[in-house]
Amino acid sequence: MLVCVLGADGYLGWPTALHLSARGHDVVAVDSLIRRRWDRQLGTPNLVPLNNMDARVKRWHAESGRSIDWVKLDLCDNRAVRDLIERYEPDAVVHFAEQRSAPFSMISPERAVETQVNNVAGNLNLLFALRDFAPDCHLVKLGTMGEYGTPNIDIEEGWLEVEHNGRRDRVLFPKLPGSMYHLSKVHDSHNIEFSCRVWGMRATDLNQGVVYGMGTTETDLHPQLQTRFDYDHIWGTALNRFCVQAAIDHPITVYGRGGQTRGFLDIRDTVRCIELAMVNPAERGEFRVFNQFTEQFSVQELAEKVAHARAEHGLSTVIEHAPNPRVEKDEHYYNAKHQHLLDLGLRPHHLQETLIEGVIARVETLRRRIRPELVGASTVDWRGAHQRRRQVAVTGRSALSSNGSAALVGAAGGRRTVAAR
Amino acid sequence: MLVCVLGADGYLGWPTALHLSARGHDVVAVDSLIRRRWDRQLGTPNLVPLNNMDARVKRWHAESGRSIDWVKLDLCDNRAVRDLIERYEPDAVVHFAEQRSAPFSMISPERAVETQVNNVAGNLNLLFALRDFAPDCHLVKLGTMGEYGTPNIDIEEGWLEVEHNGRRDRVLFPKLPGSMYHLSKVHDSHNIEFSCRVWGMRATDLNQGVVYGMGTTETDLHPQLQTRFDYDHIWGTALNRFCVQAAIDHPITVYGRGGQTRGFLDIRDTVRCIELAMVNPAERGEFRVFNQFTEQFSVQELAEKVAHARAEHGLSTVIEHAPNPRVEKDEHYYNAKHQHLLDLGLRPHHLQETLIEGVIARVETLRRRIRPELVGASTVDWRGAHQRRRQVAVTGRSALSSNGSAALVGAAGGRRTVAAR
Repeated sequence: MLVCVLGADGYLGWPTALHLSARGHDVVAVDSLIRRRWDRQLGTPNLVPLNNMDARVKRWHAESGRSIDWVKLDLCDNRAVRDLIERYEPDAVVHFAEQRSAPFSMISPERAVETQVNNVAGNLNLLFALRDFAPDCHLVKLGTMGEYGTPNIDIEEGWLEVEHNGRRDRVLFPKLPGSMYHLSKVHDSHNIEFSCRVWGMRATDLNQGVVYGMGTTETDLHPQLQTRFDYDHIWGTALNRFCVQAAIDHPITVYGRGGQTRGFLDIRDTVRCIELAMVNPAERGEFRVFNQFTEQFSVQELAEKVAHARAEHGLSTVIEHAPNPRVEKDEHYYNAKHQHLLDLGLRPHHLQETLIEGVIARVETLRRRIRPELVGASTVDWRGAHQRRRQVAVTGRSALSSNGSAALVGAAGGRRTVAAR
Repeated sequence: MLVCVLGADGYLGWPTALHLSARGHDVVAVDSLIRRRWDRQLGTPNLVPLNNMDARVKRWHAESGRSIDWVKLDLCDNRAVRDLIERYEPDAVVHFAEQRSAPFSMISPERAVETQVNNVAGNLNLLFALRDFAPDCHLVKLGTMGEYGTPNIDIEEGWLEVEHNGRRDRVLFPKLPGSMYHLSKVHDSHNIEFSCRVWGMRATDLNQGVVYGMGTTETDLHPQLQTRFDYDHIWGTALNRFCVQAAIDHPITVYGRGGQTRGFLDIRDTVRCIELAMVNPAERGEFRVFNQFTEQFSVQELAEKVAHARAEHGLSTVIEHAPNPRVEKDEHYYNAKHQHLLDLGLRPHHLQETLIEGVIARVETLRRRIRPELVGASTVDWRGAHQRRRQVAVTGRSALSSNGSAALVGAAGGRRTVAAR
């Protein structure tokens, strides 16, 4: 199949482009490289030395004999998107090309608007281009499990059968997302569902869990093929960050009590899931949703897994409970379904201590690149305390908001040491 | 109360500003005047001669002795929004300031993106400014009944109690909106719900039905106080358009079979609903949704009401069934709740033939301003046929999409004459 991978410079976009190429598909790798610009703006250099896309694609050809077309393009440029789709008429588009950090989206009003405009407008341009130039193309769109929030009912895969006042319907699963970023994905999902219902397009929305791991079979082929690995408090996610903290003997920072339960998956399963969705496309007019994760853990459980993996080697680990900068429940019901990808043949890599040990060992080889100031708890406060403090300084009248904010702050700090076994 | 009315140059924003002022509130009228620019771009001049905002506010002061502050401001300008909220610290904000035409949003990818970016970014800027400078302010936001679509279950007011696999939760009512515009309001609703849940803000989302009528007690005080009245195929809505069509003996154009059922309300009830919501604010942290309409009709029923009102005067009316440019069901279940505003004291103006006769009579006095080419069925096709035809001309390969489009086209045309009684 001919597939455009949008966001091909990213943590998951790049391994996906390589995996699909290795599996015999014709891959067009597309990215605006904006993430590299954001990293310069925010001072969040990557743990892994990253080659530019030209060098990566050339290296891939040398290693595999396979060609990937590399196109630098911003999805917010409607004309460029239309030209791309008209030129390639892809069988599938895999769309990773969004701002994907929750903390980034909560830094300021400007970053919130930037996130939602970038994600929503880029996705809309893509939908219209597909409608007009490749209406049979299958859109495989990356969403997030965070769209659902933590409802008190089982989380189904995108749709819910409801009975209400004696009548029945199948409705979109209701969402209570947890950040301006997560909201942007909810907006995308609604826009895509519309395109299927009204234009007869075909789409699979992959509500992905938190991904961990440093690479795949393909990225491991050569150092120049490595993908990025984020450990900072803006871009890094739970398990990956914990491994970096452990590697430099920094306490593992768990927000609040750590009861927050989420879906997780190995990066090697991400690339496999994408291909499974792609080669088993949705029907014309179908808006299909898969929950793309393999296991549920609480944040506390993850931290303890890292501590135990280290304990095997006689190392002790401090787990620190930091005040949660996010607003989220840290004790809640959570049971999310994830059957569809298993039905298509996914054989999950379950989280094992050997994986954690492997990541920690590899992080240690990159130790000199770690910036300690980026490793700790996030300074981005969901409640906008920073914005309000600035207001106090300027106007001297925000007692109400400051109190409102303080009242919301959750679990107090606390430290716990897991001894070596 | 001190209230900022955003979108105060609009069909409903202006009468709302006057009504709230007449009721003793201190009103700040805010608008970017973008709608006047859109009218110049699209060639959709208004039926009513409109004064500029300075003249209107001055006239209002002369008629009522009440002052309204007029501020020209674009909600997409984050700094200006923050300055506005910091300066006035309003008790309430009534937010009408959005692109509100479904056909406009479906003209092209550019108009779709413009609609969603304008509405979502403006609303986000407002939410952040309220959080930081007026956290106790009550946001009264105009949504639309069109957010819900036409589900096979009763439509509740924003929230739905569900039982699923033996567990219960109260969830946001699932939405299947019918255009890029309606989608933008769904996005807004999610963003606002987040601001209540995470920042403790208070908001009422008014999912309004289709409004009809030419004015209110206040706008009727003087010709310079009249509000706009849209009759063209981009901005005009069902009943208002039918009255204009009837006034110039144009056939009434019903899309498809006309079984599409929607909620409707009189413009005099709109302004009353806004004040009722405002003086009975939501609690801190509460995301409250009211369905703001008073009666349900099918489009065919509305057309027949116009025909019958004319028949009373011995005039016959042609009802024409045009192919529906929208993609929507024209036979469906529809039962939408609208109790909350009645509970707060709304006493509805139900639709009567005298209202229809009054509108037709007033339209007739403005007859020379009507542009016949704007009166008929819309040329904006939901399926993007125009965009695709351009593709055929350019590339010669859109057979599949053209077929897909043709297959979707609904009811064929047909004419029916309602004889004078």
